[in-house]
Amino acid sequence: MNNECVIGIDLGGTNIKGALLDLNGEIIEKKETPTLSDAGPEAVVNRIGGMITELEDLARRTGNRVAGVGIGVPGQPEREKGEVIFAPNLYWRNVPLAKYLYRNTGLPIFLENDANVAALGEHWRGAGRGSVNMVMVTIGTGIGSGIILNGQLYTGASGAAGELGHVVIESDGPQCSCGRRGCLETLTSATAMVRMAREAMDSGIKTVLSKEENLEAKDIIMAARDGDRLALEIAEKSAYYLGIGLGNIINILNPDTIVIGGGVSGAGHLFLDPLCRAARDNCLETAGSIVRIAAAQLGNDAGFVGAAKLVLEVN
Amino acid sequence: MNNECVIGIDLGGTNIKGALLDLNGEIIEKKETPTLSDAGPEAVVNRIGGMITELEDLARRTGNRVAGVGIGVPGQPEREKGEVIFAPNLYWRNVPLAKYLYRNTGLPIFLENDANVAALGEHWRGAGRGSVNMVMVTIGTGIGSGIILNGQLYTGASGAAGELGHVVIESDGPQCSCGRRGCLETLTSATAMVRMAREAMDSGIKTVLSKEENLEAKDIIMAARDGDRLALEIAEKSAYYLGIGLGNIINILNPDTIVIGGGVSGAGHLFLDPLCRAARDNCLETAGSIVRIAAAQLGNDAGFVGAAKLVLEVN
Repeated sequence: MNNECVIGIDLGGTNIKGALLDLNGEIIEKKETPTLSDAGPEAVVNRIGGMITELEDLARRTGNRVAGVGIGVPGQPEREKGEVIFAPNLYWRNVPLAKYLYRNTGLPIFLENDANVAALGEHWRGAGRGSVNMVMVTIGTGIGSGIILNGQLYTGASGAAGELGHVVIESDGPQCSCGRRGCLETLTSATAMVRMAREAMDSGIKTVLSKEENLEAKDIIMAARDGDRLALEIAEKSAYYLGIGLGNIINILNPDTIVIGGGVSGAGHLFLDPLCRAARDNCLETAGSIVRIAAAQLGNDAGFVGAAKLVLEVN
Repeated sequence: MNNECVIGIDLGGTNIKGALLDLNGEIIEKKETPTLSDAGPEAVVNRIGGMITELEDLARRTGNRVAGVGIGVPGQPEREKGEVIFAPNLYWRNVPLAKYLYRNTGLPIFLENDANVAALGEHWRGAGRGSVNMVMVTIGTGIGSGIILNGQLYTGASGAAGELGHVVIESDGPQCSCGRRGCLETLTSATAMVRMAREAMDSGIKTVLSKEENLEAKDIIMAARDGDRLALEIAEKSAYYLGIGLGNIINILNPDTIVIGGGVSGAGHLFLDPLCRAARDNCLETAGSIVRIAAAQLGNDAGFVGAAKLVLEVN
């Protein structure tokens, strides 16, 4: 008898990552290829199709049957229609991704937003294992989040739940790209940290950060670890505001676990400790006292691991 | 054969309201008696017990069998133990309410927080009927909320979900009783509206509100309807801040329905229209475009109707 296995694909702006996994989420084989989105949606969809075929061939050779394919997309999917409505980083609008891949592979295809599949991945095989109510918050260009409630992905009435980055925490704060002011991600994303550093450097403040040509948020965290004053100030400020954002989500959802993902979370205790303090300071004790705040464990694998889990969620 | 029915009790700081309902939520009989919490927890528990006995007798006389009793409490229940951990308005700590009533009535007793039972009530029989993902927000002394997800009450990992009143929306805002600054309820509860009016009157601003001896939030809404300038300003400001709070919850939970309860909601369009606008202005369009914002329909009955529903949720 054939064993069942699943394929997870993480479609990113830069790379397509995919893997064949068994039903326990163990990775059998990983693949990676550049997205090359400039070549247009059809070319990208074909590259994904090629990866699926390779992984399915491998499954067949080892006596396994692929139950389905989950795909995390950097944008807004229409799950029933199997379309990607909008994916700004890929310049996609209304791309019938699942329909096309189903026609070419004969496999059931499930689409989900990338923040949601990352949450599913960490819940299945990472820092959120065993959690019942979990929120994964990813600190990147913006702030993304995925919500697991009663052990299952929660996506809301129109699939738009978890927009923690656009929760307003300072109604007269900085302008956000969404048109409002003081959204969490204007105050505490990786982008916001780099912006704060550049503004300070432009105003003449001395810092080791001036040496970095392509300044990233993790450089700021590293410099803070080495005692750089400006970097410390920015890290503290970011932890403070993110703490308010997490406090708000703790007050609303009372989760047992919050998983922090993104490059900054790799900085470990230096960022996570003040963040945990700020989060607990900014929520009511009944909810704050029971929540565990942990760094993500799967790194870049979270996307395809969670995408693979989609197949099992729906079946 | 006996028909089944359920009892719902709404334990408030001032009154105990209760009712016998059929399994469709139709009210067969209502009761109300003062809480008289000064006489101590035992006396209050006995009064509740008496109301349950009366309602059960009535059920028996009409050939019905009571399946259980749900009780909404103004505080924090420990559902498994059947205790009220903390109910500040009643000066209760660790009162074994369900245990005691079970011993005296032999009926299964279910406890839940009052904001949560109100949400259950409106979802079962009121403005939230048919909704899948609903949030009920009650504007009173503070801001309470109850959350229904996938058609069921969501209470979080330790029963503390839905503390919308303590979501921070202005991190340098007014001091809140919880110890933080800029919590939603410091900017937009009934208490906050009255405080704003008093501060303005103390500073010499002329308004028809000066005539009111016991100024309440609904007086402010009524005066706004009549064109009083200060009242209009306060109503607008409150709608603006509450809109930010609702926008945040729409961004996080992407509900199909938000039900607004509390005295202020009775003011109708005057408050609800600017509130709806503010809420939609303060969230992303994918979630904001699909949410229905409606005034509560059950008024003071929501508590015991929702409490009665508890029995059916658990069974």
